[in-house]
Amino acid sequence: MNSKRIAVFRKEHFNAAHRLNNPAWSDDENTRVFGKCNLPNYHGHNYDLIVQVTGEIDRTTGYVMDMKLLSDLVKERVLDRFDHKNLNLDTEEFRNLNPTAENIAVTIYHLLRSEIKPELDLKIRLYETERNFVEYPAEA
Amino acid sequence: MNSKRIAVFRKEHFNAAHRLNNPAWSDDENTRVFGKCNLPNYHGHNYDLIVQVTGEIDRTTGYVMDMKLLSDLVKERVLDRFDHKNLNLDTEEFRNLNPTAENIAVTIYHLLRSEIKPELDLKIRLYETERNFVEYPAEA
Amino acid sequence: MNSKRIAVFRKEHFNAAHRLNNPAWSDDENTRVFGKCNLPNYHGHNYDLIVQVTGEIDRTTGYVMDMKLLSDLVKERVLDRFDHKNLNLDTEEFRNLNPTAENIAVTIYHLLRSEIKPELDLKIRLYETERNFVEYPAEA
Amino acid sequence: MNSKRIAVFRKEHFNAAHRLNNPAWSDDENTRVFGKCNLPNYHGHNYDLIVQVTGEIDRTTGYVMDMKLLSDLVKERVLDRFDHKNLNLDTEEFRNLNPTAENIAVTIYHLLRSEIKPELDLKIRLYETERNFVEYPAEA
Amino acid sequence: MNSKRIAVFRKEHFNAAHRLNNPAWSDDENTRVFGKCNLPNYHGHNYDLIVQVTGEIDRTTGYVMDMKLLSDLVKERVLDRFDHKNLNLDTEEFRNLNPTAENIAVTIYHLLRSEIKPELDLKIRLYETERNFVEYPAEA
Amino acid sequence: MNSKRIAVFRKEHFNAAHRLNNPAWSDDENTRVFGKCNLPNYHGHNYDLIVQVTGEIDRTTGYVMDMKLLSDLVKERVLDRFDHKNLNLDTEEFRNLNPTAENIAVTIYHLLRSEIKPELDLKIRLYETERNFVEYPAEA
Repeated sequence: MNSKRIAVFRKEHFNAAHRLNNPAWSDDENTRVFGKCNLPNYHGHNYDLIVQVTGEIDRTTGYVMDMKLLSDLVKERVLDRFDHKNLNLDTEEFRNLNPTAENIAVTIYHLLRSEIKPELDLKIRLYETERNFVEYPAEA
Repeated sequence: MNSKRIAVFRKEHFNAAHRLNNPAWSDDENTRVFGKCNLPNYHGHNYDLIVQVTGEIDRTTGYVMDMKLLSDLVKERVLDRFDHKNLNLDTEEFRNLNPTAENIAVTIYHLLRSEIKPELDLKIRLYETERNFVEYPAEA
Repeated sequence: MNSKRIAVFRKEHFNAAHRLNNPAWSDDENTRVFGKCNLPNYHGHNYDLIVQVTGEIDRTTGYVMDMKLLSDLVKERVLDRFDHKNLNLDTEEFRNLNPTAENIAVTIYHLLRSEIKPELDLKIRLYETERNFVEYPAEA
Repeated sequence: MNSKRIAVFRKEHFNAAHRLNNPAWSDDENTRVFGKCNLPNYHGHNYDLIVQVTGEIDRTTGYVMDMKLLSDLVKERVLDRFDHKNLNLDTEEFRNLNPTAENIAVTIYHLLRSEIKPELDLKIRLYETERNFVEYPAEA
Repeated sequence: MNSKRIAVFRKEHFNAAHRLNNPAWSDDENTRVFGKCNLPNYHGHNYDLIVQVTGEIDRTTGYVMDMKLLSDLVKERVLDRFDHKNLNLDTEEFRNLNPTAENIAVTIYHLLRSEIKPELDLKIRLYETERNFVEYPAEA
Repeated sequence: MNSKRIAVFRKEHFNAAHRLNNPAWSDDENTRVFGKCNLPNYHGHNYDLIVQVTGEIDRTTGYVMDMKLLSDLVKERVLDRFDHKNLNLDTEEFRNLNPTAENIAVTIYHLLRSEIKPELDLKIRLYETERNFVEYPAEA
């Protein structure tokens, strides 16, 4: 076997409502920048979340990390917080942060980073729709 | 060629927020029946919509119906009404009707039915998530 | 609204091992008919299961049937029985029945049929792979 | 077990070029009806083809029909004829028939129908794109 | 929040015809290397295109880049040029360049590169089929 | 054109049975760590395998590597060895190596590495299910 690092991926999903808005701007400015995403009564998405953990294979298990434990961790730290919620109204994280896909991905990264061993790298891919998605952090 | 009927399908999608609730019930009853889908501040979905039209092939075009026209019709009658909206707050159709996948599909059927030639059959498939979807009308 | 019937669908999945074999036949005959699917030490699949229930919409809920209850029912009656099992060795159902996709679908139909209200129709779609799948019962 | 009929499905695909045109019409009329699909130098698609065969389960095999044999049949009768071809220029079938998804599906139906036992029903689903597809024959 | 870079992705698609051929070679050599992809009358694909842009999140919008603007840019620079076209006959870009997935991806990269701010990185993923795809530039 | 490197990808799949187990551990320890994946009679998966090869475009072909040759190579070196097999019982590679997704991916990497030109980089992505997958080697 080989000492190169390997990445493992776990896919989860959650459904949430959101609205894009910058309170420092006028309504017109918000409409111009965010279009339909700024409509006042919220809309929503089925977010698909892929959590990537990179490290070395543990020789006794053949795992980088137990996917069941990773799935439980994502459930506890991310899904219980965001699933079936209104991101703007129901969550601490997006009270003062615009819930774009970019900001949601960075937030999820920080919710999970401290729970995962420091020798393992973490990356988040978040699909807002099948056609719009983000990845954080990007390669240097 | 053959005189049997053929079905054509067009897939569209829209993003919306909703909340399931029966105003005739207590909060406890609503929570018991609808669970997280009853949370007060709404959540949302990427709805995938498949519109099926069944009829005979027009010999001059080779089409049952021009998919571009069907797509335009769905845009005008359905997407402009529901996309990036809060179904409970922003639409006439769900002011007094619980926006379950079933009720949304039946509503879309009626929004389109009168716009499509009577000799063509219409069927709606609506995906609320990849794992929950409905079809209306079902085969007899 | 409309009194036509509507179908609701729930997608679940399970992973299992199986082997196709007819004990009444010689090894050569089994190899000729079942090819690699007859290899003695089993192979396996990620089975995707779509359960379709057809009926009328309940006016008080807007549901044909609560998808959460349907999911729980599939978990209890089907997934707990077949997931991560060897269908030939670990299950009563396929001790004397060849675990083809056809026979698995019919078996799942009967495991669920008695648990679902008689006024609701039931249909099973089972994907053995993305390219091979079955549906039971088929339209007349 | 049960005597109801069951459907089995096999997914195949092929890549082809085509152009929609009615030679009885003027260029303007063809452009008006077929839009970009009428451009003179052809465009193309990755066609996904799902062949559905419906019948009773053979008790000795547990199969309606051997999917390997069905796949071989589709390869010989359909893929060898259409894959990597220009449907308008390279095939007998579409020399005088407009290669719409509808007409291709009906043609594939007839290419396969005589090769499949008469007691088995046949249905063709053809995806021209992920968002435009057809099914032949449709339910009565 | 965090100053690491983040990638955003937009998926688009187009349909085109092509043929692989090296005019410097004999017919036999072209057939030997390109097989069915060398057939003279063209075949085609539904190309799925994923455009990846990497940079920092703008604090006022929460975006790396407005996905609507990116989508418009891809439409104007790429889709209007290639969609429903014969790449070999209808486009400047592939008059003297073999339209392999590799060459199409590199060409799309250059069509978009000058339109995107220099501080943003650009990467192209192009699916010729679900099973054959390319990415440019690859990581160093 | 450009001298940056480009990656090409080929997707294949195989079906196999496996069981996770560490023979140095007690049954209880194996159950605790591997859960249902440790059940004695095996279960199985439809493995989706994506092989990534990175290099420069050959000017005469427009290819990094002929995808047909890559597909043949994967078939000969990987699919013929693992498809429709019991990884624990039927293969040399996993007689003494736990067939986790991680270990299967690393094994496939080594089966292919020596067959691919040294100036081309190789990466393996292996899907055990749609929701659990691995990539080897990971970026540094």
